[in-house]
Formats: sequence, C-alpha cells, structure tokens
Amino acid sequence: MLSFLSDYTEGAHPKVLQALIDTNMTTLPGYGEDAYCLRAKEKLRAFCGDREADVFFLTGGTQVNAVAVSALLRPWEAALCAETGHINTHEAGAVEFTGHKVIGLPAENGKLPPAVLAAWLERFYADETHSHMPFPGMVYLSHPTELGTLYTGAELDEIAALCRRYGLRLYIDGARLGYGLAAPAAELEIGDIVRCCDAFTAGGTKQGALCGEALIFPRHGAPAHFDTLTKQRGAMLAKGRLLGVQFDALFTDGLYLELSRRAVELALELKKELTGKGLPLFIDSPTNQQFFVLENAALARLREGVAFNLWEPVDEGRTAIRLVTSWATRPESVAALAALL
Amino acid sequence: MLSFLSDYTEGAHPKVLQALIDTNMTTLPGYGEDAYCLRAKEKLRAFCGDREADVFFLTGGTQVNAVAVSALLRPWEAALCAETGHINTHEAGAVEFTGHKVIGLPAENGKLPPAVLAAWLERFYADETHSHMPFPGMVYLSHPTELGTLYTGAELDEIAALCRRYGLRLYIDGARLGYGLAAPAAELEIGDIVRCCDAFTAGGTKQGALCGEALIFPRHGAPAHFDTLTKQRGAMLAKGRLLGVQFDALFTDGLYLELSRRAVELALELKKELTGKGLPLFIDSPTNQQFFVLENAALARLREGVAFNLWEPVDEGRTAIRLVTSWATRPESVAALAALL
Amino acid sequence: MLSFLSDYTEGAHPKVLQALIDTNMTTLPGYGEDAYCLRAKEKLRAFCGDREADVFFLTGGTQVNAVAVSALLRPWEAALCAETGHINTHEAGAVEFTGHKVIGLPAENGKLPPAVLAAWLERFYADETHSHMPFPGMVYLSHPTELGTLYTGAELDEIAALCRRYGLRLYIDGARLGYGLAAPAAELEIGDIVRCCDAFTAGGTKQGALCGEALIFPRHGAPAHFDTLTKQRGAMLAKGRLLGVQFDALFTDGLYLELSRRAVELALELKKELTGKGLPLFIDSPTNQQFFVLENAALARLREGVAFNLWEPVDEGRTAIRLVTSWATRPESVAALAALL
Amino acid sequence: MLSFLSDYTEGAHPKVLQALIDTNMTTLPGYGEDAYCLRAKEKLRAFCGDREADVFFLTGGTQVNAVAVSALLRPWEAALCAETGHINTHEAGAVEFTGHKVIGLPAENGKLPPAVLAAWLERFYADETHSHMPFPGMVYLSHPTELGTLYTGAELDEIAALCRRYGLRLYIDGARLGYGLAAPAAELEIGDIVRCCDAFTAGGTKQGALCGEALIFPRHGAPAHFDTLTKQRGAMLAKGRLLGVQFDALFTDGLYLELSRRAVELALELKKELTGKGLPLFIDSPTNQQFFVLENAALARLREGVAFNLWEPVDEGRTAIRLVTSWATRPESVAALAALL
Repeated sequence: MLSFLSDYTEGAHPKVLQALIDTNMTTLPGYGEDAYCLRAKEKLRAFCGDREADVFFLTGGTQVNAVAVSALLRPWEAALCAETGHINTHEAGAVEFTGHKVIGLPAENGKLPPAVLAAWLERFYADETHSHMPFPGMVYLSHPTELGTLYTGAELDEIAALCRRYGLRLYIDGARLGYGLAAPAAELEIGDIVRCCDAFTAGGTKQGALCGEALIFPRHGAPAHFDTLTKQRGAMLAKGRLLGVQFDALFTDGLYLELSRRAVELALELKKELTGKGLPLFIDSPTNQQFFVLENAALARLREGVAFNLWEPVDEGRTAIRLVTSWATRPESVAALAALL
Repeated sequence: MLSFLSDYTEGAHPKVLQALIDTNMTTLPGYGEDAYCLRAKEKLRAFCGDREADVFFLTGGTQVNAVAVSALLRPWEAALCAETGHINTHEAGAVEFTGHKVIGLPAENGKLPPAVLAAWLERFYADETHSHMPFPGMVYLSHPTELGTLYTGAELDEIAALCRRYGLRLYIDGARLGYGLAAPAAELEIGDIVRCCDAFTAGGTKQGALCGEALIFPRHGAPAHFDTLTKQRGAMLAKGRLLGVQFDALFTDGLYLELSRRAVELALELKKELTGKGLPLFIDSPTNQQFFVLENAALARLREGVAFNLWEPVDEGRTAIRLVTSWATRPESVAALAALL
Repeated sequence: MLSFLSDYTEGAHPKVLQALIDTNMTTLPGYGEDAYCLRAKEKLRAFCGDREADVFFLTGGTQVNAVAVSALLRPWEAALCAETGHINTHEAGAVEFTGHKVIGLPAENGKLPPAVLAAWLERFYADETHSHMPFPGMVYLSHPTELGTLYTGAELDEIAALCRRYGLRLYIDGARLGYGLAAPAAELEIGDIVRCCDAFTAGGTKQGALCGEALIFPRHGAPAHFDTLTKQRGAMLAKGRLLGVQFDALFTDGLYLELSRRAVELALELKKELTGKGLPLFIDSPTNQQFFVLENAALARLREGVAFNLWEPVDEGRTAIRLVTSWATRPESVAALAALL
Repeated sequence: MLSFLSDYTEGAHPKVLQALIDTNMTTLPGYGEDAYCLRAKEKLRAFCGDREADVFFLTGGTQVNAVAVSALLRPWEAALCAETGHINTHEAGAVEFTGHKVIGLPAENGKLPPAVLAAWLERFYADETHSHMPFPGMVYLSHPTELGTLYTGAELDEIAALCRRYGLRLYIDGARLGYGLAAPAAELEIGDIVRCCDAFTAGGTKQGALCGEALIFPRHGAPAHFDTLTKQRGAMLAKGRLLGVQFDALFTDGLYLELSRRAVELALELKKELTGKGLPLFIDSPTNQQFFVLENAALARLREGVAFNLWEPVDEGRTAIRLVTSWATRPESVAALAALL
C-alpha cells in the first residue's frame, strides 16, 4: 500500500529520533528550561537571522494558532484570513473558543489577495457603524497555504504594508514553512517573513518531528508572560525537552530545509508524472501537497492501492484529490503511483 | 428636523411610561420575581398561545442574542445564519466572545435561503474531515431581517424541517418581531414561530419600551438554571420590574401589535410616496424599515432636513439609505419627507 | 408590611422619574451619544474633580464589574479581593466567565486587610513556581463593602501603595458608593478614590435609579475601544438615554449624595433604636446596611410584619439579619420597626 | 549531582522509548485513529475492568484537567476542590479560562475532607441567595494529592455519596495515579476509582512517558463529540500515535504499576533513612513524593549536591522541601542522599 495521505503518517525523521534516544536518560529541568530547548531557540534565531527573536515551542498546529492569535489580538478584535484558512475551517473553532471572531475573506488559490484585503479594510472604516463590529486586529496567512500555494514577495509586501497602515498584526501559520522555503518556485525567504511578521510558526509535526511547532516573535515581540499564558491554555509540556531536542535536531546542519527540499522534489516529480499521464491539476501547487482532478469511477480503484485524501467534489463526475509527500516518501513510491494510474 | 433614523430614538410609548409612573413607588422584590414580571410572562404565554412557554426578560438585543445562542449551543457547535445576520455583523463579536463560531452563509434579500442551508449541511456531513470543524448546532434567523424582509411560511417550514433532520436548534431574533407580525404582507403568525422555534425573542427596545427583550422558549424549553446563567452574563437587572412593567403594558390590550401596525402603515405609505416620486427601492421591504437608492448629490441636502442612516454604497454615484418608522413617527412627517424630495 | 429588604425595591426617585418623563418624547441618537449622556458624564467629571475622567454608563452591577475587571486584566492575570467580595460570591461566576480567576483572601468585617494583601503578594513572588500560577493583576474592593463597612484613608493608601509596588490595577465597586461617601463616619472622600483607583463605579440602581452604574476611569484611563468592548459583552443599550437622563438627574444639585445621606441617617437611627432594645449587632456598619443578631424564635414573627434578608446562621439558636434603608425608606418605618421588636 | 527534583526529569522509560523506535517508520493514520491508540485504549479498559470505558489520550496534565473539567461542567457550574488542588494553584487559571469558577475548600494533608464538602454543600443550598452564585457542578480530587497523600476507601465512598446526592460529577486527577495504586498503604484499587468517578486520568508524563495523559470516562460516559472538543481546545495531536504507542507500552505486562511500585519503594526507603537521621517529616506521604522539614542553614549546602524543590517556609528558620522518586531513580542515589545529610 502506497501512502500519499499526509506528511504526518510516520514517526520522527531518524536523526530526530536518534536525538531523543541519545538524550533520553539525561536529567533535565522541566517546562522548557532545559539546555536543549535553549540551544534549539538559539538555532532558530540563527535560522531567522534575528538574534532578538523570541522563540517558544508548542505541541500542535491548532494549539499554536489559537494561543498565538489570541495573544496577538486585543479583546475587541478579530482575525482576518482567506476563507480557506486553516483557522477558519479545520480547527474546530479554536480561535473562537478564545473569544475572537475569525473573518474569512474570498480567497484565490488558497491565498488572501491583497486587493481583497485592502477593499475590505477600506469598506470597514468607511462604514459609519463600524464601532459596533469586531475590529480587524490581525491578518492570518498560511504559507504554504492549505492548497500548497505560495505568496509572492510582492503579495507579502503589499499585505504587510496594509497591516502597518491599519495597525494590524501579521501572523503566518508555517505548519509547512520548510516546504514553502525550499520550493524551487519560492520567492519568499525566511528573512522576508521575519521582516514582515509580528509572529509566525515553523512547523515540526509535518516536517519530521513527532510533534511540535516553533512559534517565533521577531524583534523581542513576544507578549508579556507568554509562558504563563501558554500554561493557561494547556500548551506547556512538563517534559519540554521533547520539543527542544527535536527542534535542536531539525535545525542542525540544515536538516529542516534539506528534508523539505527532498519532499518538494518528489512532489514536483509526481506532478510531472501524473500530468504527463493526462491527469488534470486541481490547482498548480509548487510545494509538497499536490492536487489532481480524478474521475469518480477511478477513485475506488486507486484507493485500493494508495492512501490519499479526497479534497472536494469538482463536478458531478469528478473529485479533487490531494497527494502529499514528506521526508518519509520513498522515490520509488512516486514511480509506483504513476504506474498505477 | 425630521427623523427616520431608527425605531429607538424616543423614550417609551406613553402607555408604557405611564405604567412605570403608576408602579414607581410600589415595593417589589428584585431580580424579576415581582408580580409585574410574572403577569407579563403570563401575557406573553397567552400571546404565544403556549401556556408552557418559558419567558425571560433581558435588557438588550445583542445581550439576549449572545445569552440565548450560547445557551442553546453545545461547546463544540457553531451558529449558522445569513451573512447579513445581526450576530454576524453588528454585535461586536458577542457570540464569538462566548466561545462559538458564527458561520455566515450567502443571503438573499437579508434572508437565509433554505436551499443554501440544505446544500451547506449536506456538504458538511459529506466532508470526511468534518469532525475537525465546528459542528452546526443552530440556525439563527432574524424576522424581520436586517433588511426589513420577511420569511414566508414555506421558507420557515423548510428551514425548520432541515433543523429537525440535522438536529439543529432554531432561533429567531425578533428584535422587530411585532413589525413582522403586523405587516399586511406577513405570512407568518406568532403560532408558526412558536411551533417551529426552540427559542425566539419579542423585542421591546425597538417596539415602544425604554429597553428590554422578551426571550421565549416554547414548550418548557428553557435551559436548566437559565436565571443563573443570565446573571453570570451580566444580563439580570436588580430592578427586574423595569422590564416586567414595560412588557406588561406592551402586551395589554394588544398594544404591541397595534403600535407595530401603525408604524408599518406609515412605512408603506412612505414607500408609496417615494417610489411615486421615482426613488428606486434598494430592496422591497414590507415592514417598518424602508431602503431607497439615492444619488450621492442628493444625500447632503436631504441630511439637512432629515435624520437617516446611510446603508451602503450602491455604485460610484449612488448610495442606499434606510428610513425607519416607529410608534413615535407622526403621519405628517411622512408627508413632509415626501415634500422634501 | 414594612420593607427593609434592600435598596432596590422601589422604582426611581421622583426627580429621576420626572427627568425620564420630561425627556421621553425628545428624539435622540442611540448608544449613549445623546446630549443627556454627554451632560451626565460632564457632571460626573465635576463630581470626581477630574476633568479628564473617562465615564461610561452600564446597566447593572454584575455586568459592570465583569466588563471592567476583564478589561483591566491582561489574559494571564487574576483579580484579588476579600473572600466576601461580591465578584467572589454573588455574581454567578461572571468574572470567571470572562476567563479570569478571582482569588478571595481572608476578610475582616468585609474588608481586605492591607496586611493580608501584602503577605499574599510577598509569598506569591517568593514562590519559585509562581509563573505557573495566575498572576495578580488587580485588587477589587467594594466600598462600602457587602457588610456595609468602609475603608479608612490609611487602609486605602496602603492598598494603593501595594498596587503601585506590584503593578496591580485598583478597582472599587461602588454599587453603594454614595452611602459610603455620605456616611458621617466616612474618612474617604471622592477625591481619595479618584486619586487611588484605576477605575471605580458609582452605582445608580441602589441609589435612586431604575438601573444603571457609572463606570469611571480617572485620568483618561479607559481601555482603548471600550465602547466596542461594552457592546461585545452585551452591556450597551440602544436607548443609552435611559442611563444618561437618570445619571444627569442624580448628579444635579447634589441629589446623589443627599439621597445617600438621608438613607444613612435612617440606618443609623435604626441601629440606635435596635441596639437600644438590646439587639446585638452582627457587625458595626456605618452605612445604609445594618446587621443584627436575632434569636431564631423571633425570626418568623418578625417576618410577618417586615421584609428583610436572612444573612447567615450565627450559631445553633441565632441568625444574622440584614436591614437596609434607601431614599424610599420613610422615617416612620424605622419607628414602626423598633416598636415591633 | 543527585536529582530528586521531580518525576519528569528524564525522557521515557526504555521500554516506552523502544516502542517508539520500533514503530517509528510504520505508516499510520493521524489524530488517534491508528492501531496503537486503539490497542492502548483496549488495554486501559482491561486495566480498569470496564469494557465500556471511553478512553482518550491528551498531552499534558493542565491540558487534560481543563478539557475534562470544562466538558463535565454545565455553563453555570463551578468545580469544588481542596484549596491545595492543582487546578486551584499551579495551572495558571486554565479552568477559569474555560469560563468556570474553581472553589477551593479548606484541605487537610492535601485532601478534601468529606465533612468539609458536606458542610459546604449544605450551607450552599440553605442560602436563600444561592441562585446568584455559581452552582457546584463537580468535585475535583487528586489521587495521590499534591502532597503525596491518598484518599481512603471510606473517604472516597463518602465523597461519591455526596456527589450522587447533590448531582455533582466526580473527577480524579491521576497525574500520579500509578504511585497511588502501587503504594503499600493504598486502600483504593482501580476498581474503586472506576466505580466512583465520572472521569479520571491515568498520567503518563510523570509515570514513564515522554508526554501524555489517559482520560477515562467509565461506562461510556464521554461527552458527545469529545474528539471535536479536544481539537477545539488545541489538545489533539496530528501524530496521535505518539501517545498511543507510549500508553500501549506502559500498559503491557503491568509496566505502569511495576514502575510505580519501584519508585514508591525507593521513596519509602528514603523516608526511613531520613527520618532515621532525625529529619522531621513535613507531611507523612505514602507515595513517591516525600516532604521533610529542613533548617534553612542546611538548605544551601544540600543544594550543592542534590536537586530538589523548596515547598514552603515552615517558620522563621525552617523550610519544607520535596524529594521525588520515579522509574529513573537509582537505588544508590537514595543511599547517597542519606549519606549527604
């Protein structure tokens, strides 16, 4: 059985696992105050090129989004995002549970078009009754998006300029950040993200760790007492080392980007092979998630040999499917899949 | 200066005020346990034709919506509504503050089309990942809607059937319920609403009271300990009499509907007069809120003599405006406005 | 039937009611932007001797406490108060509903002793694990307290100094503030409260209004967008005039303090009469709430002729009761009660 | 350097780690739907002797408490616990963040005395004003307590009877449950806990896992859609296998209790050795946490060679300290510590 189900179907990358094995019997303080957490934070600062970045490790994607978004918003504010944004769809209302509205705006290819954002903001402040509505407090982007697409440099700059102009914070959900940075088509570098954002994440779970998301606030931008807030939201591990050791390994010798690069290469090969066989793209993704349109008649048969996600119905007879690669995808699986179709 | 700004620009209807004057020096217990509250609840039960209806009095529209919606939802559930629904726009995120997502669906003339709701629900449950999303827990309708429009009997029945089928509660925001029931074009009677809804409100603030909204749970449907929950949300008055006395007056001798009927008559006359003068309708409303399209050039001049709301830009040169009547609107004001245009 | 049940058992003081009558038919904008609200705010600023005070009108005591406390606390902070404090007991957990812990400290005569507060704060910061606990963010005092007692100048100064030293905000719940200021034994003047507090309330409901609490943030100290936050919490009235007109009347020609003074005089006379008859005090209150210890055998008989509150059991055979005076208490009622005992 | 700092200062027990290694490259579905999670749940059901128990795996102690407590409470309810209970002290107000008050009652040796609970409940319902207070909705116990002590069979029965009588749910925080079950002095067996509780946890983090707490609702007692609620609170891992594999290992061949038993044996030996040297007990704990009273003068010197927690000041010259054993404590460390004193 081939699996292109997702990038979180295996355990940890062997080097990450080895680091856990090597440090297992070391006695360490709890709650993220151990040497591995500290060292991993240093490495993330170096990766970001920002020696003043505040770095925290949380366990999962929904968790880190809810904690960060609510920490960045003031009580009367809402988060703006593409209507397809993860916080607006597949996080079970976690941001709303913290008391804030999420306002989904029309998306294009999974992205929030700067023009859509600009028009919304202009209309909001032109409305005489706007003080009766939740104020826009932040923009949430995912990069890569839920559809694997990437913001261009111009798009990010334009959105960041709107944020500055309207006093909004800018947050990037980087659950798959590495794939976004390592893609050959990527325009954005880590420095662009650091420069533009008030906070962003560098995901571990989908990038080779057992669990864990790094949350970065550039330029000493962390909210006060953020550790206590993290504890209050049930997002602090007693054995913080579990996250520190893994991120320490992921950010040693460029492993994070190397794993991302290999996964994207396989994904692009997959795209080439499958489109070569005449399979239409549902969307043209430059990263490790690929989306194709399949005849419904072909779905059941494919499912016998391959694990993958149904994405959404395209029309009466066809369905979009998602195929995902990761560090654990073997090159021969791509060929095997192509052979199946 | 004429005012068609809203239906809450004067104090109380004289009969309501007189009731407050008459009862002012009577010594009464607090927190809604006085004889006037009890009597007003009886009258509302009679009005509803449901002797088992649970009735509560809260102070304002946003408040009663947030308290009722959150009390009807279970923690993992969201409220569905027309994207123009009041809880989705002008309540400052009050429902989200209680921890629940509000999901706005495409609206037609301010209404949630049953077909839109049906399609959304079908798609939700067909999605393999739906357990990662907030579950639909209720449908919120406003009747009349924010655009003055009314649901037909067929529409309400269809929505109610969808609610039963999918296990959703049905809630109607009746901040202007009287105008909806008293309109000549109204199909829905109070009995239809009682029959279909798990809860609904009969507004006082916009219908002749100083403040106050009646919240009705038909068939003994109130959540347990709802008084304590009301207190917890800061929605219980020490001098509950203030609400009881007013609703007692409003529901004596048919005053509630009589005031509504007169206001709607004036609104329809206004519509006739203004469309007669060639002013295009923005929407065709059968109730006390009327919407017209005005040349921007005419706006400033009209504002000199009349108070009204800008609704939204229609195109480059034109704007929709809202004109509202109430118990306090004098018939000669309608003629005076028509003369002005 | 005599009533000493509470200070909210009648409607509005005749002058307040008259103001509502006089302004009833005036057309006014909604949401607290009318001339009466503005004028009442000016009068409260004059009363406070702080031309820069930000003033808001909310409807009820639990509501204003929950909104103000949560607006003054940062997400990881708790409110400290006497364990008998209203937010810790009779507000149905309204502050906790906003996400914050209320920490009740041992009280003396309903007051939070400065030494108790100082010791708690010292112990908190000495604890190596304190970053895992909710941080103290504010001190909540009631003045008069729930037991009618008053803070001395020295006590308030000491508490304010602790707040400055530990970075805590200071909030006073003045649901009965007038009685506290007008009592012959009062040390604190309004200027002391304005000087020491980050926010405080001047209650209307228990001081002659139908409803309404004034919330004052001295020195332009209101949180940003406080109106929107108030709306979000369901605490904003469409007819804001209802509060503005009443507070305008209460703060005209010294009515607020005059009513308070008369009520306290009657309460002190009641204390003199009843202690003269040998009834022991449960607590020695200098304000409009008086507390006595009654034989249980006498309770039932007294209840036949007088409405009052049972406070708490004192021992096997005796119970503390509360007797309250207000602007509506007639002097002859005090004599009549004394005669009954 | 010896460490008796806590039971979470090392990684995973070697057998748990081995299970992670062995399963690392297996492709598995996410979100707890993998075979290891299912198998671990089966083993926990067998351990509980309840084939109908609903079992969930969450990552941390504060997280599982906040999710479970808020899921068991209805909106107007509070949790009752010993004032020393973990949710009342060291969880940064996580339960209050979900909107519920935690009411701490006077504790004895870290336990909530049944008589204290009974008296509180009787007084609550006798109070005429109790509907203005948060209703008691559940009792939270920790077993072992934060002071290492254990409830007796009689105590648990009495508390459970009170819960049934007053309609309260009963929840046991078993972050260290194994130590409580394996202690020679333990009266309670797992069957007693299953029989009496609506929910309880069996901790992994402090019992040999890298992270993870099992949450058990006996008799199919899980709240509806609990997985979605878990997701909403940020408490669901994409790689749910991380928890399933570990609990599968811990509950294979009795490892969980075996590790607990060894740790408790070492703790009791430590107690014997240290009291033999004349060190007074701060509290007489039968489990893996031991508490002694130390002269302040001796503290600094001891800290040079041993890592441990200061617990609290006892008097001017003495401090209570905590020494904790775990599966990772070596027998020779106990002797070495004894030699140091």
